Parts: sequence; structure tokens; C-alpha cells
Amino acid sequence: MEDILELAKRRGFLWPSFEIYGGASGFYDYGPLGAALKNRVENLWRRFFVIGEGYMEISSPNLGVSEIFVASGHVGHFADPVVSCSECGESFRADHLLKESGVETDGMSYEEIESGLKDKGVICISCGGELSKISTFNLMFKTAIGAGGRTGYLRPETAQNIFILFNRLYEFYRKKLPFGVAQLGRAYRNEISPRQGLLRLREFSQAEIEVFVDPRSKETHPRFSEVAKVKLNMVPGERPEAEMVAGEAVKKGIIAHEFLAYHIVRTYQYLVGVGIPSDKIRFRQHKKTEMAHYACDCWDAEVRTERYGWVEVVGIADRTDYDLKSHITESGVDMSAFVRFDAAQVVEKTILAPHMKKLGPVFRKDAGLVGELISNSDPTGLKGDGSLDITFNGESVNVKPEMFEVKTVVERVEGEKIVPHVIEPSFGIDRIIYCILESAHREEERSGEMRTVLSLKPVVAPYDVAVFSLVSKDGLDEKAVEVFEQLKEKGLLVLFDTSGTIGRRYARSDEIGVPKAITVDFRTLDDSTVTVRNRDTMEQERVKIDELAQVLTKTL
Amino acid sequence: MEDILELAKRRGFLWPSFEIYGGASGFYDYGPLGAALKNRVENLWRRFFVIGEGYMEISSPNLGVSEIFVASGHVGHFADPVVSCSECGESFRADHLLKESGVETDGMSYEEIESGLKDKGVICISCGGELSKISTFNLMFKTAIGAGGRTGYLRPETAQNIFILFNRLYEFYRKKLPFGVAQLGRAYRNEISPRQGLLRLREFSQAEIEVFVDPRSKETHPRFSEVAKVKLNMVPGERPEAEMVAGEAVKKGIIAHEFLAYHIVRTYQYLVGVGIPSDKIRFRQHKKTEMAHYACDCWDAEVRTERYGWVEVVGIADRTDYDLKSHITESGVDMSAFVRFDAAQVVEKTILAPHMKKLGPVFRKDAGLVGELISNSDPTGLKGDGSLDITFNGESVNVKPEMFEVKTVVERVEGEKIVPHVIEPSFGIDRIIYCILESAHREEERSGEMRTVLSLKPVVAPYDVAVFSLVSKDGLDEKAVEVFEQLKEKGLLVLFDTSGTIGRRYARSDEIGVPKAITVDFRTLDDSTVTVRNRDTMEQERVKIDELAQVLTKTL
Repeated sequence: MEDILELAKRRGFLWPSFEIYGGASGFYDYGPLGAALKNRVENLWRRFFVIGEGYMEISSPNLGVSEIFVASGHVGHFADPVVSCSECGESFRADHLLKESGVETDGMSYEEIESGLKDKGVICISCGGELSKISTFNLMFKTAIGAGGRTGYLRPETAQNIFILFNRLYEFYRKKLPFGVAQLGRAYRNEISPRQGLLRLREFSQAEIEVFVDPRSKETHPRFSEVAKVKLNMVPGERPEAEMVAGEAVKKGIIAHEFLAYHIVRTYQYLVGVGIPSDKIRFRQHKKTEMAHYACDCWDAEVRTERYGWVEVVGIADRTDYDLKSHITESGVDMSAFVRFDAAQVVEKTILAPHMKKLGPVFRKDAGLVGELISNSDPTGLKGDGSLDITFNGESVNVKPEMFEVKTVVERVEGEKIVPHVIEPSFGIDRIIYCILESAHREEERSGEMRTVLSLKPVVAPYDVAVFSLVSKDGLDEKAVEVFEQLKEKGLLVLFDTSGTIGRRYARSDEIGVPKAITVDFRTLDDSTVTVRNRDTMEQERVKIDELAQVLTKTL
Repeated sequence: MEDILELAKRRGFLWPSFEIYGGASGFYDYGPLGAALKNRVENLWRRFFVIGEGYMEISSPNLGVSEIFVASGHVGHFADPVVSCSECGESFRADHLLKESGVETDGMSYEEIESGLKDKGVICISCGGELSKISTFNLMFKTAIGAGGRTGYLRPETAQNIFILFNRLYEFYRKKLPFGVAQLGRAYRNEISPRQGLLRLREFSQAEIEVFVDPRSKETHPRFSEVAKVKLNMVPGERPEAEMVAGEAVKKGIIAHEFLAYHIVRTYQYLVGVGIPSDKIRFRQHKKTEMAHYACDCWDAEVRTERYGWVEVVGIADRTDYDLKSHITESGVDMSAFVRFDAAQVVEKTILAPHMKKLGPVFRKDAGLVGELISNSDPTGLKGDGSLDITFNGESVNVKPEMFEVKTVVERVEGEKIVPHVIEPSFGIDRIIYCILESAHREEERSGEMRTVLSLKPVVAPYDVAVFSLVSKDGLDEKAVEVFEQLKEKGLLVLFDTSGTIGRRYARSDEIGVPKAITVDFRTLDDSTVTVRNRDTMEQERVKIDELAQVLTKTL
């Protein structure tokens, strides 16, 4: 069977980028069929999550200022170990080189990788030259913004844009938790030597959701009952692989909480929705050792492929309050939510109350300010003699105990400020597209002839329908054009093909996954009906032209 | 009236980016309502041009290798003059500074601008410091790809991706001209000091179409008759402003040809389609002096705004064969189309035919190669004595006349190779969105009260419909949730709002342009009907719940 990436290239789904300039690995162009497929994969995602879950979409710049990525940790830690060849100058990812020579590198330090390479005698795989020592290579694309040259980076994930907009979004959602925000867009990772087609791109498309939730209400999800009975193929971190319904996985403590489990199931339903066979999907929990430092539970949706084995296509993580807290620290901007108690609480509180009459003579015109500073001070910070140090005009001033009173007051508290936790389902669109194409691709014998079919689900197929005329004479062509125009008017994406025999045209449209093909023939001129052929079953039926759009929309 | 950008910020359409880190001019986030609006503006564009015209969409990387932009001229010429302040260090666009001091700078050289600034005594507008001399600032964002540090740029326009894919696309379209290719995506210009909100962004969204056409068939467009009678408000380069139908403009030689005129009209229809009032749209032809060096005719679609005056939102240019030729030269890759003659032509041709028997003894094992070199040589390049110089093994070798024969042969020629011309409609999506918002925004008095309305066309409105319950008791809320879920199922984007009085909720949904609002009231519990209120007319009608989706889809 032809390689699916070869078919995709030949028929206009995917092309390696910049071919006329020698190419650059890690970049792909979506050709006409690929872009149409991608649009539909993304639109179905919107239908599931933006419309279905109410997670409103935002769209932010791909470029960001450096502060964002200092806070997120990408400037400091988003890096891979690189070695380069002393002869040809090519660079390689050090851990990948060692892995390829048969050593398990997970969890190894750079020093360990370096001595591993030395022990194995690994040399340049291009020219056999000697390799340099390991250096650290940051994976963000760096640039300078404006004539002043402010440092900017292309975002390594779309998520950060959502975190830094928290206050705006919280207000948009009328200051109520939980709420979810979605973003579809490009992200960038300056991989050292990407060599896996669509799987490891330097520029790729992500679809990410950040659901902001009160950490104390993660245990239950209001719609969990709708998904509790969905069976999932699961590989829990430290336990044996098992098929299990979502409800049971939560009950047994395998998935951390309903909120995470709900999104795992919705992810599963989406992947099935775009056409990935359910038996090729599994959910693998990160082991404690591989979990990102910010996450408290993380699952990967993986798809079984012929070419690469199990491929991670979606990550569903509980990122806790890590990201918001990092940005709060870096920016100094408060990004917390105010959560009302069910009933207001009455609490006792110790405060410092300044005696303004005694402050006046001592501090004169500054007495007001000093009084305020006393009120704002922490009563637990009093010195042994009961006096208080405050910082005033840049200097430390000691305030005697007689200047204020330590009082216990009773306060009514309506709620409290919390930093929300974040549940993040993060979809790798390009990987999903690879899996859709590979799993839809088959060759089969029909009536003694081989045919290639891309059994794409109609909802993601690049064309809705093909229109042919049986022969190019006696007005059949004109009639076919009429049908074509009529379907276009309805908003359908229609393939119109006039070249070659009708068999050849069926074959071509099967190969690119057009679900239905309409043929205008001589009978059409008599009774205004056409043949509608089903790509998968190859069955044909007669349909009235006027009913076509309706029939097609129904079955798509 | 509130500024539309203020309203857009307050209600979640548009937010200046990176606010918590002090912001960066030239970047905007599309908030939940803005992103929904933008998606719809783009989808209608697809409906017009991808589905309607059959210009298939592609989607390419935002990052590109430097060769692309060397060929396109951006590395060499895509630059602005910059001056910076010797005291505060801020940078300014030199020509803008001079323009602001009242001097018309169009067509000025950098030297002229520099002396203009000196004559006017222009100083730093931030701190009053002295300004530096002018330097040239390239407007592309530069970065390095891979550990080897290959130079890359963020694309300054989406068009170049299409040009460099010409051979792939030409094959996709079965090697027939004309064909069109569309792309929607981000483009980047590292503006020196952008200060015009959505109008001058450093990262923006373009929707570009490149139609490849045989230059000899630009005069006629097969569907021109469909648009010939559409009246346009035109400002021709050197002639007076006039309203004119497209057919007349072509006949009078004002628009260069039907192919360009067709796309001007389709652009007009699209702009009206997204909701820009037709009387605010005009088409302005570039004067000879402002036309890009590669274009032979160029028109801007401009929209009249309250805030900025006439704003260019679309450019429609005949880019000739400039781009393809530039990339052919830079890459050395042939990117021509083969155009068949109506009938094969028989032509006489002079060729050089090597005498292999005479070459053999002289050149021995190289005779075959030398023979080939002779065949490939241009007969007009013979020397005075009839001999021929060929380059062989890096050296020039003289071949005596007796080694070959000059023959006249008769050949059958089926067609010829040409480099196609390109007609490019290029849409600035962010500017279009600004114009949509501004022109939809109004305040009006109704029954003695002021209300703010965003009269967005339903096809671009961020929500399709709002659902309210009259009061939050007696089961009305639950019923409203049912209606909400039912409409979501149909793929509609539904605003569900439960807070405040019904009047307040109408007001809020009017302000963000929701075309229809559904209210569940007590009668709903009896007869399963709801009130549907029209945003613009404020009229209400009763509709059965079961018929809602149908009624809404029809009127949207």
C-alpha cells in the first residue's frame, strides 16, 4: 500500500514547505485538500467545545513579549540538549542520538547523556565526524519587537495567552467560576532536528482549552452523569491497562476527579467524531516521574498508528494554580477570583487600631499616613515590647505601644479570594489529522480491481460531494454545471471533474475521500434525477435534483 | 457616543495585548465576542471565494526561510525610515513625524525627509530630546531556525507562500489556467511605532487570493456578465471621482480589464455582505506614482470611518508575472505553465546536428557528451568562422564546423510555455472588522430611553440568538435551559443570560449585536411558545419552541 504521506503529497493534502528553496524540516503546507480537511476538523472541535461546552474562543497574537515566557518558565527551562558535529556542523538532539543507540534516556541528566554518548562511541550520523559537548538549546523562536528591539518570542503553546487574560475573561464571564476559554492557533517549537513528518513540527496548530475552576469543586462536574458510563481504554500510571467506564475510574481514584474525567470522555467523543476508530484510542496517565512539575494529574489521548505506533494527540492535565500564580508573581497583578460563601461568615479578627490623638503631636502632618500604616500592619509582627516597626519615608520607624491598641473585632465575611485551578485539554491538530488520514486509508479489491479509498467521515471530508457528467456531450456537461452551481449555492464544497472516464473519476474522488459522487446521465435530461454513489459501499441510488441538497446535508 | 473601541474592550470583543506586562503597541487580542465575529467574517469570505469562486484554500507556515523574502524583495526593500531620540531612546517613523508637522512626505527620499525634520526643528514627541539621523529599519520580524541558526522571517504577507507553491498548485488544478488559490492567516510587520488601534498592527490577519491567469486572456472573464451592471463608487487614479457600473469602467479603460473588474465587484459584494453600508465603500485606483513596481493596475477598496476617514481595507492588484519570475530567478526552478494552442502549429527551426562519426576519434569517451552539448547550443551563437565554443569540463573548447551540421527542421508545436500573471485581491481582516463594528454602532432613543445597539448582520454576529427566562422561578429557568440546549444542538451559538431584569438583558444583548432574543415566560409553560424579539426593530413575535431553530436559521 502506498504510504499515506505520499498519497497526501500527490493529491494535494500536504506538502513539505519551501521545496523550491531546498525545504526546511519541521514545516508543512496544507494544500487545498489538507486545508479543507483541517478547517473541518477545527470546526467540529468548535462545535464540540465552543458551542457544546460554552467555552468561548479567543484569538491572540502568535508573538508575545518575553515577560510572559519568563513567568511561564519557557525562557528558563524550555530547552533540549544539543550536540553538533565538528566536521559538517550539523546539530542533533543529544538524547535522541543516545536513544537511537539503544539506551533508555528518560530522566537522564545532561552529564549522563554526555557520558552515555561517549561510552557508546556515538559519532555524527551524517558524516561520521566527532560530536561536540552538550549545550542547552532553547526551543522558542526569538525575535525583536519594534525599533527599540524589545525581546519577543513566538508562543510555544497557545495556553499562555489565556492565562494572562484571566482578569478580562473573568469579567466577561461575570466573575463566576467555573468558566472555560478556548483557542485555536499556531504554536512554535524550534526543534533541533525534527524528522517525523507531521508529528514533530516547528510550527503547528493547537486547539487548547483552559477551564478555570474553584479547586474545591473539582470533585464533581455538573454534567458528569452524561459521560459516566462511557467505556475507555486506559493505561493508568502505575496500574495495569484496563477497559473501564469513566465513572468507575473516578470512583477507584484512577482519574483524579470528575472534572478531569469529564474532559477525558469529551476528548474521546471528539476523536471518534472526527473518524478515529474507537479501538485505536487509549488514555495513558503520566507516571509521577514524567508529569510536568505544575500538573497534579495528566492523561494523554493516544492513537495507534501503523507508522509510528502509539502517538500522543491530546493532553488533558490538571495544571493546578501554577500558571496563574506564576503570572501573578511576575506581573504583580492580582489575578484571583472572589468566591462567595453559601452564607456569610462571622469571624473574629485581631487588628491594630491607631490612637490618632497620640499620633498627632508626634507625627504632625504625617499622622494620617502613619495611622494608615499601623492599621495595615500584621498584629503578629509586634515586637517583644509590644511596639511596632513601620517603614515610613523609606526609613524604619518604631511606634510605641501606647500609640495604638490591639483589638479583637468581629467581621462579616461574604467570601474569599482564591487563585483558580486550571483543567487543560490540549489538542495537537496536525497529529490528529495524520491519524485521521492514516486510519481512513485503505486499499481493497472490488470486482477484481484494486481501489484506494480514503474513508473520511463526511463531517471532515475536504469535499462534500463530487459532480460528474457521464459523457461530455448532448448537454450533459451543461446540466452537470447547473447541478454544481446549485449545490455551491447551498454552501457545499463541490468537486467538479470532467476529465477521464467515469470510472477514473470515481477512483480519483474515492482516493481523496469524497463521500458521495453525483453523475448526470442521459436519464437526467428526461426526469431530472441523478445517480448518487456512496464512496464506501459503492452503492448507487437515483435522487431528484431538487432534493439533492437536502439528501446530502442529511447524510453528511 | 462611547468610542467603539471602548465598547469593544468593555464587552469582550477586543483587548490590547499583554496588559499585565505593560502592553505592546501593535498587538490585539480578540476576546470571546471578537473571535466569534472574526470567525464569521472569515467564514463568509470562504463562502464567497473558496466555495463560490472555487479558489481552494491552502494554509502555510507563518515562518519562512530567508530565500523567499530575498526573492520577493522584502529583505532588500521592505523598510521604513527611523529616527530615535538621543535622550529617551524612543524610536519614531521619520516620515510620520514630518507629516505630523504639516509636510506632505509622499515620494520624498530619506535625505529629503531628514532635512525636512531639521528645517522644521522637529524634536522627540515624548521627551523633547534631539533626534538621531535617519536609518533604515526592515519591517520583517527576523529569527533563527534550528540549532544551525538558518535565518527565517515571519511572513509580511501570506501571498508569497502561494507563489512558491505554484508548481504543486498548478498540478493540483490539472495544469489548466486560470486557477485561484486562497489563504487566510496571520502576517507580520514590525512597525516602528504603531499608534492606530486595529488599523496598524504588528501581527494581523490577511485573507489573500492569487488568481493565476494567462496574460492574454485577462481581457475577458467568463462570469463578467454577472457583475457588469453593479454600480461602484470609483476614484480613478488621474480622473474625477464617479459612480459607474463595472462594465462601463472596463469599456472606458478605467479598470484595466474584466479580470480585475470582476474581482473588484466581488470584493464590493463581500464587503456589503459582512454589513458595511454600500454608501461607505469606494474603490480608489493607485496613481502611477504610488503603484508598487510590480503592479500594472491596482485598486483599493476603502471604507469611510468616523474616526480615521477613508480606510483601505482591501487591495486588488494585477501583480503581473513579477512574483513568479522573481522566485524562478532566485530558486532556479522553472515555474511556468504550458498553454496549448487551439491548433498545433508547424514551425521551422534551425538546429545544430553533431556528426558523431567525426566527434568519436577526437573526443573518444566524451564524444556523446560533446554531441549533446552541441545539440543544446544556440545556432545564433556560432562564431564568424562557423565554429562553436562549448564549455566542457569547466573549460572552453572550440568545435570545428565540420564536426556538426546547421540544419533547418520542421517541428510540430502543441503550445508554449508562459509565466502566468497574478490577479490578487488582498483583504485586511482586522480593518474590515473595525469598519464593521464602527458602522454597526449606534445610540438611539426608544420610548424615551437611550439604547446602544450594534446592528451587526446576523451572518457575522458573535451570537446567533439569546435565551432568557422572564423570571427565575416557577420552572421558567429550567424551561429556558431546555430551549438553550435544543438550539445549541442545532449548532447555533447561543447566549444564555439569567442575571438582571429582562430589560437589562435585552439592553446587554443589543449592545453586543445579538440579532434575536428569545424569552421564556409563563405562557411558555402552557402552550410551548416563546417570545422572539428582533434587535433592530424591537418587535416581538410568538414562536413555537419546536419551530425555533427553523425560524432562526431562516432569518439569520
